[in-house]
Amino acid sequence: MMTPKKKVPRRRTTVVNAGRLVIGGDAPVTVQTMWKRPLGTADRETVDAVRLLSALGCDLLRFAVPRIDTADRLGELALTVDLPLVADIHFDHRIALRCMDYPVAKVRINPGNIGAAWKVEEVVRKAQDRGIALRVGINAGSLPKRLAAEKDLAVAMFRAAEEELGTLERLGFDQVVFSLKSSDIDDTIRANRLFSERHHNPLHLGLTEAGPLVAGLVRSTSALEALLEDGIGDTIRVSLSDSPESEVAAGREILRVCGLQSPGVRIVSCPTCGRAVFDVRRFVREVQPFLAAQRKTMTVAIMGCPVNGPGEARHADLGITGSSKYAVIFKEGRVLKRVPADRAVEAFKEEVEKFSSPAEPSDREPEQPSGSSSA
Amino acid sequence: MMTPKKKVPRRRTTVVNAGRLVIGGDAPVTVQTMWKRPLGTADRETVDAVRLLSALGCDLLRFAVPRIDTADRLGELALTVDLPLVADIHFDHRIALRCMDYPVAKVRINPGNIGAAWKVEEVVRKAQDRGIALRVGINAGSLPKRLAAEKDLAVAMFRAAEEELGTLERLGFDQVVFSLKSSDIDDTIRANRLFSERHHNPLHLGLTEAGPLVAGLVRSTSALEALLEDGIGDTIRVSLSDSPESEVAAGREILRVCGLQSPGVRIVSCPTCGRAVFDVRRFVREVQPFLAAQRKTMTVAIMGCPVNGPGEARHADLGITGSSKYAVIFKEGRVLKRVPADRAVEAFKEEVEKFSSPAEPSDREPEQPSGSSSA
Repeated sequence: MMTPKKKVPRRRTTVVNAGRLVIGGDAPVTVQTMWKRPLGTADRETVDAVRLLSALGCDLLRFAVPRIDTADRLGELALTVDLPLVADIHFDHRIALRCMDYPVAKVRINPGNIGAAWKVEEVVRKAQDRGIALRVGINAGSLPKRLAAEKDLAVAMFRAAEEELGTLERLGFDQVVFSLKSSDIDDTIRANRLFSERHHNPLHLGLTEAGPLVAGLVRSTSALEALLEDGIGDTIRVSLSDSPESEVAAGREILRVCGLQSPGVRIVSCPTCGRAVFDVRRFVREVQPFLAAQRKTMTVAIMGCPVNGPGEARHADLGITGSSKYAVIFKEGRVLKRVPADRAVEAFKEEVEKFSSPAEPSDREPEQPSGSSSA
Repeated sequence: MMTPKKKVPRRRTTVVNAGRLVIGGDAPVTVQTMWKRPLGTADRETVDAVRLLSALGCDLLRFAVPRIDTADRLGELALTVDLPLVADIHFDHRIALRCMDYPVAKVRINPGNIGAAWKVEEVVRKAQDRGIALRVGINAGSLPKRLAAEKDLAVAMFRAAEEELGTLERLGFDQVVFSLKSSDIDDTIRANRLFSERHHNPLHLGLTEAGPLVAGLVRSTSALEALLEDGIGDTIRVSLSDSPESEVAAGREILRVCGLQSPGVRIVSCPTCGRAVFDVRRFVREVQPFLAAQRKTMTVAIMGCPVNGPGEARHADLGITGSSKYAVIFKEGRVLKRVPADRAVEAFKEEVEKFSSPAEPSDREPEQPSGSSSA
């Protein structure tokens, strides 16, 4: 049912292992997000939140680590959950070193603020020793001072990345992913193209400080789609002044529109209007978390009224519309059942569960829901 | 500060007048949304909501008109507000005729469900007589039965549009905008390209039933950007299972990333992380409606911490960051003032108001805020 916009020939990059996750090479493009609160202990609530993000399609989860004690808390979490975790380090390289005492999958450093070359070297040596990947995150907002005079920010970001790459190559370290981010769409696209034309390190794509939900989604889609359709990009993060769950959903959908990821439920739902008799927004809100956690390739149509409802339902694998009293569930265009409104969500979920889609790729195993294993 | 992704040569279309709004020709691409509730009387609350949408950048507002009495209520509203209104008619052409007794700007009909040719002719004759524009809205979910056998939905939509165009041309009517919408990105793009290559009628772009907020925004951005960057499209609507305000914000941002609309405040805001000390999401939420109503071309940076904050603020016209106690406002990269946290929103708004941007285009006059004129 889903037509990919075009088939994308991916640019070939080297393989980087971030814990059990493969970035680059033939690996599928992965989706990341970032933890938005101060990191507490690896308690039940934190562990459950991490597992939920994994179930929603997050492949890699990053945490800001501003202090040494946060490094220990991140380490404790990395020992508890199966999802690969990334430590995000600014200013103080000793925090990066501490994180690597634990099984974190990757450490992100921003060379623009880490300082002296020997500090970067210490981080690289330990990463090499522990088999931990690095990301060098170049950001237009925090470039090394010596590049501040370069008027073209895309060129400045590219130069900053090349300088760091030179250092890493001299140290014989190749387990590194690069990112070149700006809040400007054009600068971000050009910087990544410049890098991708000359180097084979995997690229983490993102538009930084993209903005509030609506504007940030539009801008991120525009930037990331342009690069992904060029075959550029091995892992993506959609930065939004919104929840990590929204960032993951956005990342997954961007891959989908680029034809890069097939599994997942596509929701066709109407915007509703003065004609709507079925409460689409409420129904969508109630079934969305459930649908987002499905790894089936299917299309569901959630429609407010009879104008386009049956037509759309005809093209969907499963459809629902109705009134305030009853809901009608369609399957491949035919009426399957009619249920009272208060049974609609439950009956719809049952039908989604019954639906069988083509075999799923086995490269991504969602975590188990939290059970009695964590107190 | 804003770099348009590329300059777009617009395809030339004929001019259609929808009330005081010009669609097609040299006119800027306009943004529409749709009223989502049943339409009540033109009371104070309704009028204020319409005026708010206008202030946010809505150029044209559409209403579902399922019954004759709704037509009268829409007519009453059209007599009260300055914003051009569109009547959306399905099934019953007599409702379209009734709407045209009032100064509505445009009537949208879906030929797939209006029925006999004489009914369409009656609508066209009256539109001609009253100087009211029409939109022929072709929708993949409700195509005429005779086209149901066509396997390529894009071709089926294109054929349906051409049939209707033939009818209108025989009647000598050229004040018509076309739309060819599907919930599939690829079908929507191809149908609009087919139409645009052969005809000069203005096109209203949209992806129909695009889905919930996040997925719908990603999908709509992908489809609309592809067309707009081809120079196709004269007016757009982003259909979301969300609020009309979100649809307008999305439409404006899509035009902006295509370099099609310069005025408006661009918000650079960080996604926040465990390092954030300034509550970005809350601040964004508090200033966003105010910023959305500004017609100034400026960039503001709202940052959670010192990592990228000052860097981004340097590139922005106005920036803010801070802690839980104080906020620091930057202007063109220099610290302008430091204010207590509880004064941050107010002080920031004052600085936005003081900022003067290049002269605004005069083609779009926002409505006056509601005063004592409506009871």
